Amino acid sequence: MPEPVRALIPRLRAICGDDGVITDTAQRRTYESDALTYHAAVPGVVVLPTGTEQVAAVVRLCAEHGVPFVPRGAGTGLSAGALPRDDGVLVTTSRMRRIHEIDIDNACAVVEPGVANLDITRAAAPHGYYYAPDPSSQQVCSVGGNVAENSGGAHCLKYGFTANHVLGLEVVTPGGEVVRLGGKAPEAPGYDLIGAFVGSEGTLGIATEITVRLTRAPERVSTVLAAFATTDAGGAAVSAIIAAGVLPSAVEMMDALSIEAAEQAVACGYPKGAGAVLIVELDGPASDVEAYAAVVERLCREAGAFEIRAADDPDERARIWKGRKSAFAAVGRISPAYIVQDGVVPRTALPDVLRRIAELSARSGIRVANVFHAGDGNLHPLVLFDDAEPGAAERAAEVSGAILDLCIEHGGSITGEHGVGVDKACHMPAMFGPSDLDAFDRLRRAFDPQGIANPEKLLPTPRLCGERPAVRKGEHPLVAEGAGDVF
Amino acid sequence: MPEPVRALIPRLRAICGDDGVITDTAQRRTYESDALTYHAAVPGVVVLPTGTEQVAAVVRLCAEHGVPFVPRGAGTGLSAGALPRDDGVLVTTSRMRRIHEIDIDNACAVVEPGVANLDITRAAAPHGYYYAPDPSSQQVCSVGGNVAENSGGAHCLKYGFTANHVLGLEVVTPGGEVVRLGGKAPEAPGYDLIGAFVGSEGTLGIATEITVRLTRAPERVSTVLAAFATTDAGGAAVSAIIAAGVLPSAVEMMDALSIEAAEQAVACGYPKGAGAVLIVELDGPASDVEAYAAVVERLCREAGAFEIRAADDPDERARIWKGRKSAFAAVGRISPAYIVQDGVVPRTALPDVLRRIAELSARSGIRVANVFHAGDGNLHPLVLFDDAEPGAAERAAEVSGAILDLCIEHGGSITGEHGVGVDKACHMPAMFGPSDLDAFDRLRRAFDPQGIANPEKLLPTPRLCGERPAVRKGEHPLVAEGAGDVF
Repeated sequence: MPEPVRALIPRLRAICGDDGVITDTAQRRTYESDALTYHAAVPGVVVLPTGTEQVAAVVRLCAEHGVPFVPRGAGTGLSAGALPRDDGVLVTTSRMRRIHEIDIDNACAVVEPGVANLDITRAAAPHGYYYAPDPSSQQVCSVGGNVAENSGGAHCLKYGFTANHVLGLEVVTPGGEVVRLGGKAPEAPGYDLIGAFVGSEGTLGIATEITVRLTRAPERVSTVLAAFATTDAGGAAVSAIIAAGVLPSAVEMMDALSIEAAEQAVACGYPKGAGAVLIVELDGPASDVEAYAAVVERLCREAGAFEIRAADDPDERARIWKGRKSAFAAVGRISPAYIVQDGVVPRTALPDVLRRIAELSARSGIRVANVFHAGDGNLHPLVLFDDAEPGAAERAAEVSGAILDLCIEHGGSITGEHGVGVDKACHMPAMFGPSDLDAFDRLRRAFDPQGIANPEKLLPTPRLCGERPAVRKGEHPLVAEGAGDVF
Repeated sequence: MPEPVRALIPRLRAICGDDGVITDTAQRRTYESDALTYHAAVPGVVVLPTGTEQVAAVVRLCAEHGVPFVPRGAGTGLSAGALPRDDGVLVTTSRMRRIHEIDIDNACAVVEPGVANLDITRAAAPHGYYYAPDPSSQQVCSVGGNVAENSGGAHCLKYGFTANHVLGLEVVTPGGEVVRLGGKAPEAPGYDLIGAFVGSEGTLGIATEITVRLTRAPERVSTVLAAFATTDAGGAAVSAIIAAGVLPSAVEMMDALSIEAAEQAVACGYPKGAGAVLIVELDGPASDVEAYAAVVERLCREAGAFEIRAADDPDERARIWKGRKSAFAAVGRISPAYIVQDGVVPRTALPDVLRRIAELSARSGIRVANVFHAGDGNLHPLVLFDDAEPGAAERAAEVSGAILDLCIEHGGSITGEHGVGVDKACHMPAMFGPSDLDAFDRLRRAFDPQGIANPEKLLPTPRLCGERPAVRKGEHPLVAEGAGDVF
């Protein structure tokens, strides 16, 4: 443990109590990564504050001594946004799990950051409400982590991201000040720092209290599964559905390889021979859902669907979702290792990008299974490789990076919902110009002049990204035209 | 004209052309205020750039010489956010009126900041789309001004504010750099500076290109007018409607005094003897709108409505809206002068706040007409006075300020949609603590270290607000309990 961290320990104990400070090496090691395990580091010390005052005191202590701190929720992140530092303090919110208020009259909840996403819905459900953002880790992921990463979920298409559901925040700034942003009333004057804070990945401070919007549970939910020969046909159905003015709550697509994986893992029983399955979920008043489900079925048939199933009973709906929900884990059945990528393209560019990913895969010999939120153009390509094969991991990383570049080339984004963290910090110059990055950096320095709040996450640094020239639009060797002989 | 401004003129002419720079005093005077005419100042010089490069060059010139600049759209603002400075450059976007693109596939439009709000809808309408934010000045107000003020409108309840409809921005920062924020793809990584920029009132720079979301035109629109004996009964109907899970696109309320004014001005023919009228608009699929309109009518009757009218034909709907839309101007018929206030309270606090406003009015002898977006708790009290009567304006201003304080006391906000500008900058300490204001100030200084971008707007300054102690929650003499003898 580096000396500057060691020196803080007695004072950290005075703030958080003896049981609120972890110094034992084996225990610290359990915090060495988030769910993106290929980035790992043992934290210098771990603290478990129980409230705002403790968080503020810990951060003030760090600020006073110039020691970095890293905030951590449940550790389910997929971009190494909570990667610890051996020269820093890991501030874990797992003891801040109180739901302060479920305010049905104003349709909101006030919670501590360590509360699990799904626990808000559990508390609101008896009143006929729920918390809409639903990352796939929602049983365990924390609301504070969701705020840090601006998490999405399968139902973003209709309901938006975490940013669309946060009404107010109490935040401990990197200087240790406690600041309140927003509140229950819609729209506050002044700068919308809630927007800037949500998705700031801990670099602007730590949220210690979160006021979220609650959404009324829909009267009816209906799920349609449609099987197509190709992803192109499935993509055409998606475009037709959106063009018809239907706004499904979710539109998910899986390609042949991911269907195969899901079948092997959970016997989901999707239609045999499908080159793509589309899952379209509708919610709202019963009369609407029925009318729209009929439109969706018709448009899927017109786009070439050879089999359609529909369900509005919870068990049947769960059967349809089973394959999709298990897809990531299922891929483990057909490949020893894989990278989950996360990129976004404008919806209209989906067919072209999928073709380019297939070319990339053919050219490199690296298999890519595609699972994605088709409605909002958020791709989750699973790049498969055998980690026992020398050089395979590097080639997979290369393909994975090239997919991001394809997203950028098509006017999209390097992350849809997993965040930047350490993992994609070096890709930011491929998406933003120097003036744009400078604007980000100015905001960061305004709140954190010492650079102690989750350093080296979100924005590229020379230490992290080296001197290698930034990849610019369309310049990636795998993406450039006629680059067929790269491998 | 102060010398520092005079010295810039030849270079401003070189940038914007001779006809793009206004130095004539009479012409400059036409820019002396926005729609809040009691704040006025003649700008040192007015420039009318035609594109991003000219804006950037003007701002760089200002930055180089430390000369302040004030951005201005159509000048329809109601918080003196575009109040000019005699020692500064007024940058008017009225020549930047191109609609670059209506992209129906991705449901968005790319426009210059000087484009009138309603012109986006006109361009999108042939494709079955429209631009949702609808401030009452939408025929003339500019999208750039809407972005600066985060403008709302009667339909915010369902569709949100400008911030909810801006997907991307090209911005000239106070240093004269051109920065791109966001774009057509949903959610970008990095800090959400779009959120911070929208509503920043020109203090973080000037938007030179704006990508907005287009919304599909609803299949059916239906408008219900319900008359009640009291605003309490109308408020109970609003609560019942929201509690039933109906989400109208607009819920507007007018009290007896504003109904009287509207009747005198435009003979709107609202039910005689009404202490309050409620206008509830529903939009969406025809089947929904019909079903919900029936629910709304039933709930209004249950809350005591003595007359209900409904319309879904555009002419009949316009007749219902006529009184509401004319209300502000109509008040001129019953009072020589008035202040339009703009405050927000959580919806559930509306009845209490309306009672307190009535008490305030009775105690001070100042009449207050209430017109408001009841669905989202956004009040627009019209504080009436006779400007020929000595001291009346000051008493009206006092009542108007006390209403804001009531909003704050009830957990609301000092502005719903008109912005802070110069007009409410000194009220900010009543709403935010020193740490909160410090956070705002840090953001501002990060982008504008010289303090040249629309200075003295949005945040309080000692010069503007003097040394008078900030009004804190519940401390206003008119609001404090037992303060009946203030007047």
